[in-house]
Amino acid sequence: MNDLITLAHGSGGRRTRDLIERLLLPRFTHPALAELGDAATLEIGGTGLLFTTDSFVISPLEFPGGDIGKLAVCGTVNDLAVSGARPLWLSCALIIEENFAIARLERLLDSLAATARQAGVAVVCGDTKVVEHGSADGLFINTAGIGMPVPGFRPTRPRPGDCILVNGTLGDHEAAIFQAREKLGRHEALCSDCAPLNGLVAAMLNADAGGVRMMRDATRGGVGTVLNELVRGSGCSAMLDEERLPVSAPVRGLCEIVGFDPLYLANEGKLVCIAAPATATALLAAMRAHGLGIDSAIIGEVVADTKERVYLRTGFGGSRVVSVPEGAQLPRIC
Amino acid sequence: MNDLITLAHGSGGRRTRDLIERLLLPRFTHPALAELGDAATLEIGGTGLLFTTDSFVISPLEFPGGDIGKLAVCGTVNDLAVSGARPLWLSCALIIEENFAIARLERLLDSLAATARQAGVAVVCGDTKVVEHGSADGLFINTAGIGMPVPGFRPTRPRPGDCILVNGTLGDHEAAIFQAREKLGRHEALCSDCAPLNGLVAAMLNADAGGVRMMRDATRGGVGTVLNELVRGSGCSAMLDEERLPVSAPVRGLCEIVGFDPLYLANEGKLVCIAAPATATALLAAMRAHGLGIDSAIIGEVVADTKERVYLRTGFGGSRVVSVPEGAQLPRIC
Repeated sequence: MNDLITLAHGSGGRRTRDLIERLLLPRFTHPALAELGDAATLEIGGTGLLFTTDSFVISPLEFPGGDIGKLAVCGTVNDLAVSGARPLWLSCALIIEENFAIARLERLLDSLAATARQAGVAVVCGDTKVVEHGSADGLFINTAGIGMPVPGFRPTRPRPGDCILVNGTLGDHEAAIFQAREKLGRHEALCSDCAPLNGLVAAMLNADAGGVRMMRDATRGGVGTVLNELVRGSGCSAMLDEERLPVSAPVRGLCEIVGFDPLYLANEGKLVCIAAPATATALLAAMRAHGLGIDSAIIGEVVADTKERVYLRTGFGGSRVVSVPEGAQLPRIC
Repeated sequence: MNDLITLAHGSGGRRTRDLIERLLLPRFTHPALAELGDAATLEIGGTGLLFTTDSFVISPLEFPGGDIGKLAVCGTVNDLAVSGARPLWLSCALIIEENFAIARLERLLDSLAATARQAGVAVVCGDTKVVEHGSADGLFINTAGIGMPVPGFRPTRPRPGDCILVNGTLGDHEAAIFQAREKLGRHEALCSDCAPLNGLVAAMLNADAGGVRMMRDATRGGVGTVLNELVRGSGCSAMLDEERLPVSAPVRGLCEIVGFDPLYLANEGKLVCIAAPATATALLAAMRAHGLGIDSAIIGEVVADTKERVYLRTGFGGSRVVSVPEGAQLPRIC
């Protein structure tokens, strides 16, 4: 059974990483790909540009706080934004299952178009494929995106003493998907955080472009997985404070009932930022002043530990390793 | 039942056009999209670039002459090439059905990588999603592509007297897919023409950049559908000569048995080119000198008929209208 693709290969966790490293990187040797960032950094005629892609296979297609159309814009816009690009253009490719209701497709496209307008990006090319009933699950959307590098910002490696920031509560997206899928009527307060983060990132870089070392959007695998990626190759580790992790009461309640860990729950409107300590307080203030960063917090710091691990300091004074999970807590959350 | 998506909506024919015009264009108003070309023409920091996307859902995944990996490169490379761009970079996004054999995935990725090398393009970013068994049919691939405009070439409208050229025999791809799907053992000679055309297009523009008015790759809907798109809005019509249409003996045989029309059969390595008459002979010679244009032919001309139709002059001296079909002859051929 090791020879078959499993849902864990698509989770964003360790199996996804294995798949990329074993199957994809050996075949595609462009330096931009080898960096494994959220977007490829390229140059055309002396002008820099960033390029990224994501397919969206979320189930259900509509959920509290969003739908696949909104998500298809946010996912790609956010990959560009956290890579230090101003998103400009999107492609939009639909794979539709036969017998899909056109009225529903229109509603999802309305949402996609509204989110693109909100994010200030233009959909400039597209494609439509239809497959037989039973050959796809409703609707899959791929978006690729092109952005222009923000002047003055270059991602750099984390250093000991750096602060680790997030722009709000963890796990809202995956918790909302879980609720929608399980039809848990009692958790009405659970709502996806799905949002385009390019405005927030612009405000952050405007406030402190020199102090921001790296950013990542904390999607599949959550903040725990993304932080493991950020410390990889840095020669440092990350130390989180459990007490400083912002988690909403409904998500905390769900995690206690179901046994989820909010550090591994996917977000679609949250980024992790590693920033120089000297200006971190000013950066935090700039984040909190933005509508998508009201609950921003410094959740930990980079420490001089060459094991390149993520640790969590618990309320009892101890600490544990936050490793990369094999797979996700739920499949098809984006 | 008019309210549901049908396979015809994905055929590349009239229903696809309806879907694009009714559902997509009203929501996305960027001028590059409104042109409905094979790629969007954009500008970043004063440098021109072209951007396109295609999803591939072909069944079966492997067929005589190619596979979904090869096709995923050719389709996007060819959209860029016929739009007058030198293809530079591709994204590659996989949607994989759970339990897909990893060895098969490796084989298809090998093919994708080899075709990218052959075409001189680099895969620079990607994405991997896995869906439950039964939620997709094996493997879908999306590629988006970025290219740089070839200096000296700008697509312009067809004019009466222009020549219509193709770079070889029609319908090989769809005929090969039909054979592979129906498991017709007797037609071994049927083989897809799937190939990256950027080298051929470079040779054509090198020979006659000023004489080439427009090019299109004749994929879904075949040469008949693509020519209808090319005359749309031009104020002219196209007159084809049935006797000059290059069709291989095995494809002709299949069409006679099954009732297919080679003018509507999809190709994956054929382009239609409209060119000024003065230099068309030199252009034809340049095409025939290229390995992917040996069977190139002038198949008709643009005529002063404001109905914007495509006509076929038959062997008996009559002519008939080649209209845009409602749907394709076969679903999921790319």
